[in-house]
Amino acid sequence: MTCPLCTTDAGLVVARMPQFRVVRVIDGDEARRFPAFYRLIWTAHVAEFSDLSPADRHACMDAVVVIEQVLRSMLAPTKVNLATLGNVVPHLHWHVIARFDWDSHFPAPVWAAAQRDEVPGGAAARLARPLAAVDSAIAQAFRR
Amino acid sequence: MTCPLCTTDAGLVVARMPQFRVVRVIDGDEARRFPAFYRLIWTAHVAEFSDLSPADRHACMDAVVVIEQVLRSMLAPTKVNLATLGNVVPHLHWHVIARFDWDSHFPAPVWAAAQRDEVPGGAAARLARPLAAVDSAIAQAFRR
Repeated sequence: MTCPLCTTDAGLVVARMPQFRVVRVIDGDEARRFPAFYRLIWTAHVAEFSDLSPADRHACMDAVVVIEQVLRSMLAPTKVNLATLGNVVPHLHWHVIARFDWDSHFPAPVWAAAQRDEVPGGAAARLARPLAAVDSAIAQAFRR
Repeated sequence: MTCPLCTTDAGLVVARMPQFRVVRVIDGDEARRFPAFYRLIWTAHVAEFSDLSPADRHACMDAVVVIEQVLRSMLAPTKVNLATLGNVVPHLHWHVIARFDWDSHFPAPVWAAAQRDEVPGGAAARLARPLAAVDSAIAQAFRR
């Protein structure tokens, strides 16, 4: 079985480093409901976070934090959600999701049942900044 | 508003360190469905992972990995799920959950809809080791 995270970008690539790439989720319900939804996808095909060396784990979470900090500074989310699940695709990837008290699922996890109607036309319109600007800021943060 | 993670243990305390405690979830649907469900609760009341200093973030994830490694070695889960959400209780805590292909929700997240019937009488009976042994192994790992 081929791994979709090994064979495709699996999102809009915002930053690409040797050890990982950062993508924004651009397809389907998730992108419409939770527009500031990024994933850090580790390059090597490993299943569990603890498969990484201590140095790689620290580098991985430092990168997750870079994404989180850009989301916080540009979008002032109610909360940031971080998760690595991998039950469906067991290739290490971190979800980094800006959550807002007005989003369709808040305060439930994005994987739970909706709490209210979706923002008509997609939630991106309610963000403080255009997603392209957030993408650029993340890309720039990894260039530093 | 008082914070429940500041004022109560919020679970069965398995290890208590100055910076954090590790608890096992023992109440409700979650404990019955996902018995090897642990939480690392940071002692200081901070909301976001990126509120921690770099050194504290590394210490936090090193501790999450200690829990993950014990779960993997004792229970051989199909997958380990890690998440810090905090939408309801914005006090930094990490969920560390051993998932099994036979659990009621796999491969969906524990917060999503069930995929099959629960294990009659509770899923703990299907684990390779008693939960008390897992608790002890986690406690011992933090004593090292």
